[in-house]
Amino acid sequence: MPTTTHRIHNFSAGPCTLPLEVLEQVADQFPDYAGEGMSIIEMSHRSKTVAGVFEEAQSLVRELLAVPEDMHVLFLGGGATFQFGMIPMNLLQGGKSADYTHSGAWAKKAIADAKTVGTVNLVFDGTDANFTTLPDPASVRAGDDAVYLHLTSNETIGGLQWKDFPAIDTPIVADMSSDIMSRPIDFEKFGIVYAGAQKNIGPAGCALVLIKQSVVDQCPGDLINYLNYANHVKGQSMANTPPVFQVYLIKLVMEWLKAKGGIAWAKDMADQRSQLLYDAVQRHAGFYTCPVDERYRSTMNVVFTTPSADLDAKFVEEALAHGMSGLKGHRSVGGCRASIYNAMPIEGAKALAGFMDDFAQRNG
Amino acid sequence: MPTTTHRIHNFSAGPCTLPLEVLEQVADQFPDYAGEGMSIIEMSHRSKTVAGVFEEAQSLVRELLAVPEDMHVLFLGGGATFQFGMIPMNLLQGGKSADYTHSGAWAKKAIADAKTVGTVNLVFDGTDANFTTLPDPASVRAGDDAVYLHLTSNETIGGLQWKDFPAIDTPIVADMSSDIMSRPIDFEKFGIVYAGAQKNIGPAGCALVLIKQSVVDQCPGDLINYLNYANHVKGQSMANTPPVFQVYLIKLVMEWLKAKGGIAWAKDMADQRSQLLYDAVQRHAGFYTCPVDERYRSTMNVVFTTPSADLDAKFVEEALAHGMSGLKGHRSVGGCRASIYNAMPIEGAKALAGFMDDFAQRNG
Repeated sequence: MPTTTHRIHNFSAGPCTLPLEVLEQVADQFPDYAGEGMSIIEMSHRSKTVAGVFEEAQSLVRELLAVPEDMHVLFLGGGATFQFGMIPMNLLQGGKSADYTHSGAWAKKAIADAKTVGTVNLVFDGTDANFTTLPDPASVRAGDDAVYLHLTSNETIGGLQWKDFPAIDTPIVADMSSDIMSRPIDFEKFGIVYAGAQKNIGPAGCALVLIKQSVVDQCPGDLINYLNYANHVKGQSMANTPPVFQVYLIKLVMEWLKAKGGIAWAKDMADQRSQLLYDAVQRHAGFYTCPVDERYRSTMNVVFTTPSADLDAKFVEEALAHGMSGLKGHRSVGGCRASIYNAMPIEGAKALAGFMDDFAQRNG
Repeated sequence: MPTTTHRIHNFSAGPCTLPLEVLEQVADQFPDYAGEGMSIIEMSHRSKTVAGVFEEAQSLVRELLAVPEDMHVLFLGGGATFQFGMIPMNLLQGGKSADYTHSGAWAKKAIADAKTVGTVNLVFDGTDANFTTLPDPASVRAGDDAVYLHLTSNETIGGLQWKDFPAIDTPIVADMSSDIMSRPIDFEKFGIVYAGAQKNIGPAGCALVLIKQSVVDQCPGDLINYLNYANHVKGQSMANTPPVFQVYLIKLVMEWLKAKGGIAWAKDMADQRSQLLYDAVQRHAGFYTCPVDERYRSTMNVVFTTPSADLDAKFVEEALAHGMSGLKGHRSVGGCRASIYNAMPIEGAKALAGFMDDFAQRNG
């Protein structure tokens, strides 16, 4: 569909670029949704229309990700940060313990919340390596007492990604906020998978949660209502008034992803986009540096530095002038970062790789 | 501004009707927000643009409601249901107690969550009166041990509204989900005021929370991060990635409300709309019945019944055919309910009152 919408390449880490077709649908469907005489955000969440949107969103997530039958699909307010705490509140109270892998900034937050509730055993700690590498998944063992093993499948800030997962009997609980829907995953190993929507799924303000019934069975009855997974499963994500707009957008993004070719397409494109950028780093190896172990480099967030902080800043500024935004590294680590989620067109990665060449030649 | 948008009168209890001007702005501002080459929901929450939207939303809430200086304004994910639990988790742990008023379906949920955390003393229980009346505010006393006294300023399902508030020294904690921004309130008496956005403020998926610094000072340090008010105050509603779309809409709704004349205008309109409907009930007193004590009838949710459940259903169905939706009473109580929040045009209330006349004449 030809469009005249003014559009720049948005490399933000999340909230981030979304499919233009989806955004145009939103504009088209405001303020009168499907001829009902009101917008989707004015409709009762108990209406047939909104219930249908939720069912469709859930069904598409289930189909695209091949979610096992004994795993529920939930859309919850509060985002992934809320899940950091909700998980231990449901599973670690009463002196229980879990294994955690410390892979960077996001794992750290999950660990901090778990420690306020139960006992945390670190089975991997990347601190000394400055979070540039991960353990061989085959080497990871869970302790006998661990209720679950937690990992962060992709560290958005560090640009570090698990390529495979531990082969253990203990259920894995995974924060997949920044790489869900970007590659096929066998969810049989997982007890809970959660993801803030604002990368590959939709807008900020909602978390996608996949949770096995066997985990739901462990939720204690004496939690406040909103914290209890069992309530949300029973209410089918409508135990309380849910974030309707976010789920509506998730439905549209899932439709878009399915039409494109689903997870296989997403993986192919993620591989292509990230290869373009890592190749550019490699071509100018004396100029750009990617600190991440080659085995665990993320296909979603490519981090790199130039020879100086001043040149990093110049790179970000000049890229913006060339229609590429959001390339500044996270304030905690500096450098540059290109977040290339599902909705980033391959043209965006090509444009950035070309600019990297040009910038290195002019400043190297 | 003349418009050709197909529009019906939406009497839903929430999510509910929003100002058409705001919805048209959303459509206009998608997919390219302010010429930035991306939509508002694709922007980093750390960007100047989104930070500016949050500051403006907060500032407008503060101005419109005359929020005291020592009270923070927060926008949090999870809605009011999450606040039911977050409040006792912050204030009642360690054997503390609070006073609650039981005024109906929403108070009941707040009470249930508080009981899982601390001790609840009911200082008013409307159960025997079937939640059709409230205590004289001047008669309400708080216990010596109560950390706070909780009330539900407007019961959306019961159509019952506190017209004034207890004159006590104990801080009042109030669920104002369904009538905030509809009348001037002296917030000095209140420790926490919370409101799901989806009635008078914006779309579902966000709660507005006003909280005194003296209450924040009581929050324990050993809570999971998302539960701790102190974190959200410190992060200025961005301790985690917030529901950006909701806060953007809240900003637009607040701008609309300010342009209309603010809270004084909102109160005047709420009085006019509700009077039109209560007058219609009164005109056909043998046909329509409003069970609520006249002193406490809500200006936001007008509940009434016809002589039979069959006629109630017929009323709802025929009203829909006349372009008025959402008039079915909550499934827990039956009957009819007209929710008439700030964005309901006076023409909607006039149309409904006219239809009530007509329906009573034809079926009485």
